[in-house]
Amino acid sequence: MTEPGFSAEDPGSAVPFDVGLLNPVAAGRDGAVSDAAYLRALVEAEVALVKAYAAIGAASAEAGEQAEALFNVPIGIETLAVEAVTGGNPVIPLVAALRAGAPDAVKPWVHRGATSQDIVDTALMLLARDACLEISADLIHVSLALQAFARAHRDLVAAGRTLTQHAVPTTIGLRAATWERGVARAADRVRSASATVFAQLGGAGGTMAAAVEAVGPERAQALRAAFAEQLQLGNLDIPWHTERWPVTEIGEAVAQAIAALGRFATDVATASRTEIAELSEPSGGGSSAMPQKQNPARSVLIRSAAMRAPQLAATLQLAAGLFADERADGAWHAEWPTLRELLRLGLGAASHAAELAEGLRVDAEAVARNLGATGGLIVSERLSAVLGKDVAARIVRAVAEGGDLRALVAEAGGDPDDLLDPAHYTGLAAPFVESLPPPPAADWVIAFDGPAGAD
Amino acid sequence: MTEPGFSAEDPGSAVPFDVGLLNPVAAGRDGAVSDAAYLRALVEAEVALVKAYAAIGAASAEAGEQAEALFNVPIGIETLAVEAVTGGNPVIPLVAALRAGAPDAVKPWVHRGATSQDIVDTALMLLARDACLEISADLIHVSLALQAFARAHRDLVAAGRTLTQHAVPTTIGLRAATWERGVARAADRVRSASATVFAQLGGAGGTMAAAVEAVGPERAQALRAAFAEQLQLGNLDIPWHTERWPVTEIGEAVAQAIAALGRFATDVATASRTEIAELSEPSGGGSSAMPQKQNPARSVLIRSAAMRAPQLAATLQLAAGLFADERADGAWHAEWPTLRELLRLGLGAASHAAELAEGLRVDAEAVARNLGATGGLIVSERLSAVLGKDVAARIVRAVAEGGDLRALVAEAGGDPDDLLDPAHYTGLAAPFVESLPPPPAADWVIAFDGPAGAD
Amino acid sequence: MTEPGFSAEDPGSAVPFDVGLLNPVAAGRDGAVSDAAYLRALVEAEVALVKAYAAIGAASAEAGEQAEALFNVPIGIETLAVEAVTGGNPVIPLVAALRAGAPDAVKPWVHRGATSQDIVDTALMLLARDACLEISADLIHVSLALQAFARAHRDLVAAGRTLTQHAVPTTIGLRAATWERGVARAADRVRSASATVFAQLGGAGGTMAAAVEAVGPERAQALRAAFAEQLQLGNLDIPWHTERWPVTEIGEAVAQAIAALGRFATDVATASRTEIAELSEPSGGGSSAMPQKQNPARSVLIRSAAMRAPQLAATLQLAAGLFADERADGAWHAEWPTLRELLRLGLGAASHAAELAEGLRVDAEAVARNLGATGGLIVSERLSAVLGKDVAARIVRAVAEGGDLRALVAEAGGDPDDLLDPAHYTGLAAPFVESLPPPPAADWVIAFDGPAGAD
Amino acid sequence: MTEPGFSAEDPGSAVPFDVGLLNPVAAGRDGAVSDAAYLRALVEAEVALVKAYAAIGAASAEAGEQAEALFNVPIGIETLAVEAVTGGNPVIPLVAALRAGAPDAVKPWVHRGATSQDIVDTALMLLARDACLEISADLIHVSLALQAFARAHRDLVAAGRTLTQHAVPTTIGLRAATWERGVARAADRVRSASATVFAQLGGAGGTMAAAVEAVGPERAQALRAAFAEQLQLGNLDIPWHTERWPVTEIGEAVAQAIAALGRFATDVATASRTEIAELSEPSGGGSSAMPQKQNPARSVLIRSAAMRAPQLAATLQLAAGLFADERADGAWHAEWPTLRELLRLGLGAASHAAELAEGLRVDAEAVARNLGATGGLIVSERLSAVLGKDVAARIVRAVAEGGDLRALVAEAGGDPDDLLDPAHYTGLAAPFVESLPPPPAADWVIAFDGPAGAD
Repeated sequence: MTEPGFSAEDPGSAVPFDVGLLNPVAAGRDGAVSDAAYLRALVEAEVALVKAYAAIGAASAEAGEQAEALFNVPIGIETLAVEAVTGGNPVIPLVAALRAGAPDAVKPWVHRGATSQDIVDTALMLLARDACLEISADLIHVSLALQAFARAHRDLVAAGRTLTQHAVPTTIGLRAATWERGVARAADRVRSASATVFAQLGGAGGTMAAAVEAVGPERAQALRAAFAEQLQLGNLDIPWHTERWPVTEIGEAVAQAIAALGRFATDVATASRTEIAELSEPSGGGSSAMPQKQNPARSVLIRSAAMRAPQLAATLQLAAGLFADERADGAWHAEWPTLRELLRLGLGAASHAAELAEGLRVDAEAVARNLGATGGLIVSERLSAVLGKDVAARIVRAVAEGGDLRALVAEAGGDPDDLLDPAHYTGLAAPFVESLPPPPAADWVIAFDGPAGAD
Repeated sequence: MTEPGFSAEDPGSAVPFDVGLLNPVAAGRDGAVSDAAYLRALVEAEVALVKAYAAIGAASAEAGEQAEALFNVPIGIETLAVEAVTGGNPVIPLVAALRAGAPDAVKPWVHRGATSQDIVDTALMLLARDACLEISADLIHVSLALQAFARAHRDLVAAGRTLTQHAVPTTIGLRAATWERGVARAADRVRSASATVFAQLGGAGGTMAAAVEAVGPERAQALRAAFAEQLQLGNLDIPWHTERWPVTEIGEAVAQAIAALGRFATDVATASRTEIAELSEPSGGGSSAMPQKQNPARSVLIRSAAMRAPQLAATLQLAAGLFADERADGAWHAEWPTLRELLRLGLGAASHAAELAEGLRVDAEAVARNLGATGGLIVSERLSAVLGKDVAARIVRAVAEGGDLRALVAEAGGDPDDLLDPAHYTGLAAPFVESLPPPPAADWVIAFDGPAGAD
Repeated sequence: MTEPGFSAEDPGSAVPFDVGLLNPVAAGRDGAVSDAAYLRALVEAEVALVKAYAAIGAASAEAGEQAEALFNVPIGIETLAVEAVTGGNPVIPLVAALRAGAPDAVKPWVHRGATSQDIVDTALMLLARDACLEISADLIHVSLALQAFARAHRDLVAAGRTLTQHAVPTTIGLRAATWERGVARAADRVRSASATVFAQLGGAGGTMAAAVEAVGPERAQALRAAFAEQLQLGNLDIPWHTERWPVTEIGEAVAQAIAALGRFATDVATASRTEIAELSEPSGGGSSAMPQKQNPARSVLIRSAAMRAPQLAATLQLAAGLFADERADGAWHAEWPTLRELLRLGLGAASHAAELAEGLRVDAEAVARNLGATGGLIVSERLSAVLGKDVAARIVRAVAEGGDLRALVAEAGGDPDDLLDPAHYTGLAAPFVESLPPPPAADWVIAFDGPAGAD
Repeated sequence: MTEPGFSAEDPGSAVPFDVGLLNPVAAGRDGAVSDAAYLRALVEAEVALVKAYAAIGAASAEAGEQAEALFNVPIGIETLAVEAVTGGNPVIPLVAALRAGAPDAVKPWVHRGATSQDIVDTALMLLARDACLEISADLIHVSLALQAFARAHRDLVAAGRTLTQHAVPTTIGLRAATWERGVARAADRVRSASATVFAQLGGAGGTMAAAVEAVGPERAQALRAAFAEQLQLGNLDIPWHTERWPVTEIGEAVAQAIAALGRFATDVATASRTEIAELSEPSGGGSSAMPQKQNPARSVLIRSAAMRAPQLAATLQLAAGLFADERADGAWHAEWPTLRELLRLGLGAASHAAELAEGLRVDAEAVARNLGATGGLIVSERLSAVLGKDVAARIVRAVAEGGDLRALVAEAGGDPDDLLDPAHYTGLAAPFVESLPPPPAADWVIAFDGPAGAD
């Protein structure tokens, strides 16, 4: 294979900008939103437009049948990227190439009545849908795995920590259940997002004037519906060229997913610390120089996504809020690479998280050892409640000076066997784990075999 | 009245940090989320907890009846703010004060089984709900006003602009309809957000262990439900102390609302430019030195909110994604002032937008004058379609060199009266305006007479 | 004292928006940037303008002498905040009040030739300077304390951690030295920022036209210099009303400071974990329910600031980049509360960090215990180098299966006493600590006794 | 040419992630920071390390001489990107490949004593330096062009606008001078940033322990200096592996540059509006459908960068503030693609801005027409000052009702020829333009012929 390579003789001149080298969280998992996928989606939108004209009876059946020939028109993707600069978007040079290469029956209908934004936006939505489908499938895998993990460790009592300090007992199962709740919520939102992506078709000013000129008002309305249907996208009452919530809502759903995974990864990274060692990743990342190290590499990568995603989502919201006129003077262009990078992070983080959740390992011994780290005082809240605040505080002080906790509790009239057993102070941890609702749409995942645009 | 004042003798030492001087978009419109409102909400949460213990039969009926006496306990709010620093939150000193001032029957149930986070989070949710109700009511007013405005100017043909340049004709009505669609969507989302705020009750580690100790597991579960019911908040299956989507989803809904309003304000600010002058605010902001100026002050203030909100929402998402342990070591504290400021911006922006939308004025003469600014070439897309691309391009060049457009079109075989009339090239603008769905939940607004917590 | 209070009878109606309740990191430490301080700075700017007119010989000496009488004009700060809304800034109503209350000699010179932005910007710069002085003084205290701490623990060998895992030995001293380097750099930058704040004086359009009208071009130039000199602010060649780097550079310096402190606090919070317990805060935050807990409250609060500051700085940069015309339609107003909140976080974080650095405690026993947590394998990188990569890997595997490390090393021909002593593998840690340059400007801190505007 | 292409038969599978299609602001101008450039920089760092060992006399002269042979080792860049995932960074697989392909004399010194972070950080700094050199050269071109433009239009009187409304006269020259001031400041900062990039060399824990093991402490210190010198990078006293200000300061300088350009582009985009039409770009972007349109495409693209950059800079600052341990568990990885994208935007924005500034065109007629848009009232501030506030307000009202301004002014005792001439009310606009300091380091630009790493 002639993979783009690198050597002193050929210092990378033929190597494109980004192959993933600086983006390990997403490398190899982000094909659904690559430039190539985007180019395909642009052509897909143009093909759908021609077919839509045929569907409403404006173009000939032949035009509709031959529309997919546009997929065969050779397009130099790097040339296109550079040609896109002058006009500010890739559709202008793309349409020229497609028209030149289109079959005669198709030619007059290529891009007819459309504006660049119709194609750019629609193609972005196609990418977003495919990415959201992949992400939500991975999120549901995470959810399923965490539910199983939570049930398996429902009764494994562990130190609960607040503000970094041991607070009261909890269970490994309950902690996993909280992760799962966040992931399940995000899975719902991303899946919703994938189901509410919309085609864009409005023409130069959002009025459909050119299409009305071409086919009259009734068929212009029908064209909007047919275009959306061809692509299996939603169709809003009026164009959303200036109202960007279809973009920001996707961005937010994906950012929420990354946050839910980031929180999971944060707890795993903490629990992986050498001194804590309660959890470990299915297979740790090795170190170049230190053979004893097993890094929680997946958690680290997921956390890196969680540090980046919110600011990307902010850019989308900002662009929406400052969108001007019938097409904005900067806000629109700011969206494209931002939404794409956010989807890319979502794809990478969700994929890593699925592997992490499915292979997560617990060291029950370490859990027990840590639980005892405060010499039994992890139940001091209970001592306060049962023996009284002042008595408990006195016991805590006495223990700090070397006193024996069991003896002190007994002296104070408490039953050490009961009061000092952390397993007796986990409250509703077990029922909370049991209350986890059936995994969201597991059947749907099973039916899902890759993004729609990938076949 | 003894309003906190300022003079050289008394350089403001008694004046609190923020009275709104640096926040004109929100000043005077943000009472629902002030520190005082938050303090009240904290006490409200503590009152509800006592009542919930009574409701489940753990505390005496008397305790439940007297719980509201906690509202009468005097609390120095500035002292409380300073005392909050040591422990990192205001509940520790608050509970001490409430316990000291509680009636005897109430005292043992004050804060029982709860942790600071239960109260801090629940109180924030109370504020968020009240603020979201106010915001969504204002958004619906904006939506109603814009629908009326769009219908009133359905056929007022205007220049459509893309990338700052005249593109094709549109109508003032359709432009307003696009604003309305964004606002209506945001109104739905904010209203949803106000309906899905959740009580927090989990105890120190989210296990309810202290409550179980006090009242047993069944009643501890019931306590969670009763607490939520007292406050008319939702109750999640398990505590969300570590999963912050209830916070981020509110933040996102409000950020989306501010963006929708920011976009509206951006178009109004642009159309208010001296050279454009198509729109003007109901009453402009005067200038200190220039009597002729009428600034689009509301649009400017709303836009300032739209520039700030996305980064605040990002901080919430970020805190959610890095939330650690059973209570985070920084992420939690980062949320409070951020969510509050976001709600504050939402309150201010929505309130100004309601006044703006209700009083927005159009100068039809300016609209017509601008429409003609390109000497008729605003319909050149149509000329291209009807006369052919090359012919149209030739005409455009000839006009640029002084040629007469009507004559050139006639020469080319076109009917100037038809082809050059912008009103004949507005496509579906009118039907799009007509398609605006009935305003969202107008009845609900009419029924709404202020936030729940305000009475 | 009649502190604004709260009770059911008086539900806080007289309590201003923000007394610090939701901002524990800054509460009680942010007086330098309060609304009251800002109001004072606004008046200070107006006073300086009158004095400047006197200094250039335009106004009478009497006017100059009586200018400070403006400080005595009573201003209702909350009324001002509300009146500021219509015009979009507080200067319009402020000037009306000042003119009404000014001595006759002063009256004609109040605000003469100035525009609202001149006063708003200059007053913000006064606040920024005062805040930066306070912040940099605290940063230098942190730097001094960390240098002493680093030297005191120069040879205390500790586990170095990468990606959460024990990697190789380091020293507590070197770790502290790295914190110090970050803080010292930030101290320099904040101090620079405090020395490069600029007065704003340009009149309505930045041309000084009104001042030229009043006093002629030469004296108008002189007026700009005299105004800046009165306030001890810098004077740029031309007004910076539209170029906002004086604002963004301050914001960035403060954000950098907060990041340097956030990193310090992050390491302290981690090292405070119950299982690690190497470091503890001078006095921990107690818990309401768990007497055994000592929370790293200062670190937590500082970290909360580090999560918020970057997005605030982003808003400033964004406003600068989208600033339009001779005064922007939203970007300008977005700056004020954002810069103020950033300064507020800086004041709070630096003040807490100074206390933290000065009282930071080490548990040498815990440090040693953790160092041994990998059973000696923390020096495995050295084993690789000395014994060969394959041998070392074999030893690591053998140890994992229960082998004796000392024996295995000896077998492989190594000297266990040397090779396995972590203290023999700290590289340049000690010389790095010794290389810390003399604390930045310690003399300056000693001379500094509070911000300029505080007397 | 065998450019990666696209067709239905070959749906882009061989096309890498990003060729620039979604990033028109940077496409074709960002080669200095591509993945290929980064890979080269990684190898450059490894080569420099070998040479540094030779320079301090540890490795043989032969090793030093043959070090550059590493540039010839074939590396599959996409394979490397995927292999980087497991360990979380590309250096681990890279070193394996380099060692395998190194000449015998070089082999033992490849990566010796270094850790992945040393190479990753150093390579990023090499990219940053090259990019900053390119960016600052372009900024200086912008500055020079704007100075010339400002002087050329020093006396072209134009409407000054505040909050979108005509306020007072200014000049096109002064407006350009303000842009120039922002750009010149940013040029200084970016150039400073390019001069203060630092090599990273600390080994696994930042102690240089492995290097000390290899060559002893004195030579390990010397190695750090020699390594930096080889690369012509700075050398800090101690490693900065955990203190990320070298990264954030670069990020801030570039963000400041983008903001300065964004403000310039914002004014150009506004002045390009069809109704204003005072400025136009050297060659506008055409439209696919509307032959009359000339879009301000460069301004739009630059503005898109200005909307994105601040949030990227925020991510860097955030990562710095949450950096943990001797190498962070996510914060470090979040930096790489973020800094790179920021540099990419800087390269694109500065390059477009240079072309924009050099070719910016003024329509003096439009400027004059707009200046008269308020019928002479643009000097109403002056009327207020000269005739009195009440008289001026009365005149403004009378004009609004159809009164003749000249006559009204004369009646009020003013000289209309003087008072109503906007050119008589431009204050210090001309001297401000004259005061522009000599362009920053123009000589330096002339000497500069491409980034250091490009030859």
